[in-house]
This record gives sequence, C-alpha cells and structure tokens, in this order.
Amino acid sequence: MSQVFQYNKLLSFVQEVFIKIGCNNTDATTASKALLSADLRGIDSHGVARLSGYIRLWEAQRINASPDVKVIYETPSTAVVDGDGGLGLVVAPFSMQVAIDKAKSVGTGWVSVQHSNHFGIAGYHAMMALEHDMIGIVMTNASPLVAPTFSVERLLGTNPICVVVPAGDEPPFVADMATTTAANGKLEILQRKNLAAPSGWIQDKFGKSSNDPHELKRGGALLPLGGDFEHGSHKGYALGAVVDIFSAVLSGANYGPWVPPFVSFLPVADNLPGKGIGHFFGAMRIDAFRPAIEFKKHMDQWIRRFRSALTIEGNNKVIIPGDPEREIAAERLQNGIPLLDAVVKDLEMVGEKFQINL
Amino acid sequence: MSQVFQYNKLLSFVQEVFIKIGCNNTDATTASKALLSADLRGIDSHGVARLSGYIRLWEAQRINASPDVKVIYETPSTAVVDGDGGLGLVVAPFSMQVAIDKAKSVGTGWVSVQHSNHFGIAGYHAMMALEHDMIGIVMTNASPLVAPTFSVERLLGTNPICVVVPAGDEPPFVADMATTTAANGKLEILQRKNLAAPSGWIQDKFGKSSNDPHELKRGGALLPLGGDFEHGSHKGYALGAVVDIFSAVLSGANYGPWVPPFVSFLPVADNLPGKGIGHFFGAMRIDAFRPAIEFKKHMDQWIRRFRSALTIEGNNKVIIPGDPEREIAAERLQNGIPLLDAVVKDLEMVGEKFQINL
Repeated sequence: MSQVFQYNKLLSFVQEVFIKIGCNNTDATTASKALLSADLRGIDSHGVARLSGYIRLWEAQRINASPDVKVIYETPSTAVVDGDGGLGLVVAPFSMQVAIDKAKSVGTGWVSVQHSNHFGIAGYHAMMALEHDMIGIVMTNASPLVAPTFSVERLLGTNPICVVVPAGDEPPFVADMATTTAANGKLEILQRKNLAAPSGWIQDKFGKSSNDPHELKRGGALLPLGGDFEHGSHKGYALGAVVDIFSAVLSGANYGPWVPPFVSFLPVADNLPGKGIGHFFGAMRIDAFRPAIEFKKHMDQWIRRFRSALTIEGNNKVIIPGDPEREIAAERLQNGIPLLDAVVKDLEMVGEKFQINL
Repeated sequence: MSQVFQYNKLLSFVQEVFIKIGCNNTDATTASKALLSADLRGIDSHGVARLSGYIRLWEAQRINASPDVKVIYETPSTAVVDGDGGLGLVVAPFSMQVAIDKAKSVGTGWVSVQHSNHFGIAGYHAMMALEHDMIGIVMTNASPLVAPTFSVERLLGTNPICVVVPAGDEPPFVADMATTTAANGKLEILQRKNLAAPSGWIQDKFGKSSNDPHELKRGGALLPLGGDFEHGSHKGYALGAVVDIFSAVLSGANYGPWVPPFVSFLPVADNLPGKGIGHFFGAMRIDAFRPAIEFKKHMDQWIRRFRSALTIEGNNKVIIPGDPEREIAAERLQNGIPLLDAVVKDLEMVGEKFQINL
C-alpha cells in the first residue's frame, strides 16, 4: 500500500524537478522545503502528492517558474507583493520575510499578496517568525469548494488561518486550520477508502446534508466550520470570508468564486477581478508588547496548564495546537516518510517526464 | 413580557448611573454608548441587561470608576495599554483609538490591553475603524466557561473575534462572533424559556454531550466552535486560545482559567498570573495596501456576489456578516428597544439605588 522514503531523498528529487521546470537553485530549494514540510508534518494531502499538480499547472502556463516577485506598494508596517504568477511555495517565504523585516523595524509587518499560486501548508511559512521571537500569522484563499451558510454555490476555498506563537522551554503553539469543518485532505482520505463522511462536513448540490465523500464531484460543497447554522456555520463562513478579503481584496488578487482552480483541467473564469490567488502574512515582534523572556515564561505556563487539564474519560491529554504535527515530523525525519503507492506512481511519472530517478 | 424604551431615554439613564459611581462625564457617555450599542444591535445579553452586573463589580471594588488608562509600552505600530481596573466600556474605545492613531502613522496599529474588565460587544469598538477607512479587529478574553477539546475543565472564555471591513456603496462587513458553537447569550435565552439546547453546544461535567441549558451550573461547559473533535472543535479551541494569548499573554493580563469572573459573587482566583482581563485591538489602513477607492469597489463586488448567491430552498438570501444587526439597529433606533420585564426590574433596582428614574 505504501513505501517509505527518506526526507533527503525526496528533497533532492523535488529540487531537481523544480530546476527542470526552470526554477533557479535558490527557488527550487525554497519550494522543495516548503512542499515537503507538509509530508514531514503529516499533512499528506499538501505535500509531494501535489507535485504533479503543480507541474501540470506549469505545463498549462499557469505557473511562472522564473517570476519577478516584488513589493509593489508599502508603508512602514505593510506591503503588497506581486507574485508574478510564481509558485506560491516561493512567493510565500519571500512575503513572510518582508513581514518579518517590517516587524523588526516598526514592531509588526503585514503583507497581502496578489498573483500567486498555492503555497503548500500555511504553517511552514508562519513558523519562519519563530526564530525571530515573533508571532506569525498566515492566510490564503483557494479554489472555491465551500458553500456559505444557506448557499448552494461554492464561493470560498478552504481558506486556512495559521497562527504560531513562540514559547520558552515548551515547543511553540502552532494552530494551522482550514476554516471548514474538515479540510479537503480529510475528505480525500475517505474518498480513497470509500468511507462515509460524518454529517456536517459536506452538502449535496441542493444544500442537503450528505455523507457521500464523492459529493463534490456532483455539485456538492464542503461546509464552513460549524457545519450548519444551528452549530455556528455562519462563523466558519465569516472566518473564510475574512481570509478571502485579507488575502485578495486587499492585494488585488482574485476572490470568492473567481479564485483560479488548482487543477489544470478546470478552466480559469472569464472577467477575473484580480490576479492569481492571494495570501496574507503577518509578523508581530513579541518585544513590541513586552520583554520576550517575560512573555515566554507566561506562554510556558499557559501551555502547561492546558496540557495538564483534566480530560474526558478515554482521552490522555488536552492537545496543544501543533503537538501532533511536531511529533509526526520528528518521527518521519528519523524513520522516513510513508507515501501511498498511488503517490509513488505519480512521482515516478513526474520523474520520467524529466528523466530523474526517484 | 417586555416594555419598549427609546434609545435616548436608556442612554441618559445609563449615563447618570455611571456618573453616580464616579465616572467623569466623558467616560460615562463613552461607556453608555458602548453598552447600549449591544441593545441596539440585538445582542441583548451584552447590553443594559448587564448594567447591574457592572454595578455589583464596582461595589465589590473590582471596577475602578476613575481609572488612569494609559499606554505603558509602545513601538511605532504597537502598544500595551494599562486599563487600571477601569470599565472595559471605557478602556476599549481608548485602546482602539491608540490602534487607529498608529495606523494613521505607519499603516497599522496593534494594541494589547491588561487590567481591564468586560467591554460589551466587540463590534462597537471595531467599528470605530470604519470612518477612517480602516479594517478593525477586536478580541477579548472572558470568564472561563469553555472546555478545550477532550477536557472536562473550563479553561477559556467565549473569547470573541470581531473583524470589520469598510465597503463603498454597500454597508460594511461586520463579523462579530464568539469562538464557541453558541454564545452564552443564546444559552441564556434557552435557560429563560426552559428549552433544550442543540447537541454540540454544551457538555456535562463528565464531558458528555448534553442538551440541558442549565448544565453549566452543574460543572458543565460550553463547547468550542465545531462542538466535538469530529466536527472540528479543536479549531474553535485553537481560535479561542489565540484570542486568549493575544489579549492576555501579550499584555500581562490574566489568561485561561485565571481570568476573573464577570459575576461579583464568584471570587477572583489566588496567585493570578496577570492583571484583570485582556483585550486586543487592531487597525489596518486600507490605503496602506491599495487605494481605498479601488478596494471599496472590489469589496462592493464581493458583497454583492455573496449576497446574490443561489440559496438552499427555503432560504431567501445568503447573509453578509453584519446585515442582521444593522437591520435591527435601524428598527430599534426608530421604534425603541424592547426590554424583558426581568431586565426592566433590574434597571429599576439600579435606579433606586442611585435615585434615578428609569
């Protein structure tokens, strides 16, 4: 069912692929590390399983492998970055660095990005803030798969929000979440296994609750966090909307139903209101609020109090956001990354195309 | 069951009460407008129904009616405000103004607040940003009523997040939401009517799902947005945690289970890690990203596209966050604010105490 690959082996394979499509060495390394961080952290849907998708978008001339990524508008604490159609995997680290540099200078930095593409997992980019003793915030819009409350139309992406917070002796707090009940990746797992989806994850094309994980192919939609109105789906919808507005209406990217699809076989809509997909990056220097050492002492206390909370019978402990992914990453860095046979086959096809051995 | 009061009549009553407890005229007006904005906007749980609660906290010397509210730490884009134990209804507008002033100067402003009290509805403070063509962001922590995923302990408040975004011809986008499945105010309505709560709103003291709206009095807890793990409650928990960290760990306020309770009959915990409750305010100048006129044109298009989306049968339209509250406010400003008899009686008792006629 699956094969195990060492991180370094996959890294050099992906680097070579990105070089073959025209990335320079630096960009190829940046993009490969960003992509593989998903596999390392156990978010398998966003890692090398998507490499062939990126390549097909490049073949369809919807990704620019040698973009001129640059700041096109700025103030002391803000910037807009033009991704020039580049890989989000390259545009995102560039933009997060701009946010970090601005935070160094005036306390915080906020960057909205236009004309980009999918950037892998938000957490990788947000975690760039940690080594600078900064809080990192990352959002992105994405292909429309989500129906707002009361709608049968898919108008939002799974639009993730990521917030990372440094701690002292404890590992950092890393919350990285789709603003839907369940991320698309979780649905893909059920599709592969032909298992029913829990109620509250998806609706059919009429807006009725459905348990069929294949419902999206028939005009259904993912549901905002909350699932239905009675359970607060208007809040999940509002959160997804905020991500869309910060990422795209602020930057000049496409928003709502106009966000270009990730899959190359779906056409890009006509009369686009913006350029590419949009992201949003924030960095806040801890010591722009209080001395970092003080903050970290309290953040450690926060983490320990929550982790040691009394649990519901049958549960070991209360989880601090980021705990499960960090544990998986440590294990996979040591023992390798398991890839499903279908993913391996997919990578081998990419390898053949460019004459690179996996 | 209820009586209708004109806005101006309630406003002058509340102003007089705040003056009687020692607020200066300016603070009394600020606090009254903030408090009554909840009644106007239909968030009845957070308005004059809470006036007697504020007074009892003042009587218990847990609210300082003449605080020295001031910035105690700052950078060009950030500040920490010490609320000096004042009414949150006064501390919050002061702090939001600091955020707005910083945004005028460097593009964005971010203010974390310590030593405050409950501030009414987040939306009122966030909407201060709109007249400056800024996005407003407001968060606050609150008395612990919410159990993190897998926990039987109440470690978080309903910790709301509010984001307001200006538009052009359309009314602004105003999302103001508790990070729980349902706000405590909605539960209070069910308690008064003795109706069952939907599953996913609350758990009993063992962490089992419950439909009894009185469960919190017996050691139960409100649930984070999502309700249970299968439906993404770990995301609601993470959002509530981010609010707690930004509001209190950044500022030096109390966090998690140490947040002082709103009700005066519950004691404040020993060995507090900080001062009072905490808030977080943000302001982002639209034209720190792109010309405001361009942004507003696209924001109008965003709003119109979502509002005109095809709906599920039986629903009229897709709601833009802020629509329902704005419509209620217009109606109540004209026709008056209905108050439940119990609330009227409560206000009359406050009036008697200070010899003010309602």
